[in-house]
Amino acid sequence: MPDLEGHPSPEEMALGAVFAALADPNRRRVVRELCRAPEAVERTCASFGLDVTKSTLTHHFRVLREAGLVRQVDYGNSRKVSLRRAELEHRFPGLLALVARDS
Amino acid sequence: MPDLEGHPSPEEMALGAVFAALADPNRRRVVRELCRAPEAVERTCASFGLDVTKSTLTHHFRVLREAGLVRQVDYGNSRKVSLRRAELEHRFPGLLALVARDS
Repeated sequence: MPDLEGHPSPEEMALGAVFAALADPNRRRVVRELCRAPEAVERTCASFGLDVTKSTLTHHFRVLREAGLVRQVDYGNSRKVSLRRAELEHRFPGLLALVARDS
Repeated sequence: MPDLEGHPSPEEMALGAVFAALADPNRRRVVRELCRAPEAVERTCASFGLDVTKSTLTHHFRVLREAGLVRQVDYGNSRKVSLRRAELEHRFPGLLALVARDS
């Protein structure tokens, strides 16, 4: 069962949900930027500079989180997002490389 | 420009369209079965036994074709579908392996 914040375990990650999450260009951009960044980087949702409303931004990060692509952690007054790199690489080998090399 | 039947060239294939096509379980099943079949197998659309109406079946194969995942060829009174395996492997290395190994 996903945790309280909606993060699935690696076994719960589903290829269909991952593909659906990555079909959107804004969500793919978030994952691509995280892929290309240093290993354990954490960013705020706003830092990606997506040109969308706040509620759409929240929606995009929920889709990414529920597919298992990113982890979101609350630090009191800020919330940071990071790529679930090792888990994704183990569960779906080669997927992140496809996203990272896409222009 | 895609050909008259809507097949994109490898350079025209877009990761977003490919992910969107593969987000659907019926379309993923078609690609998975073609992945696991011998190299140059050609099948009819009906042979996959998808439990959908004829117009939905047509829609699914159009999405697969326009994303570049399959090629459809008319043989007079029948139309066959095949996987664009080599082109996909070159354009999106590792993608088909992800679909093939998914249960």
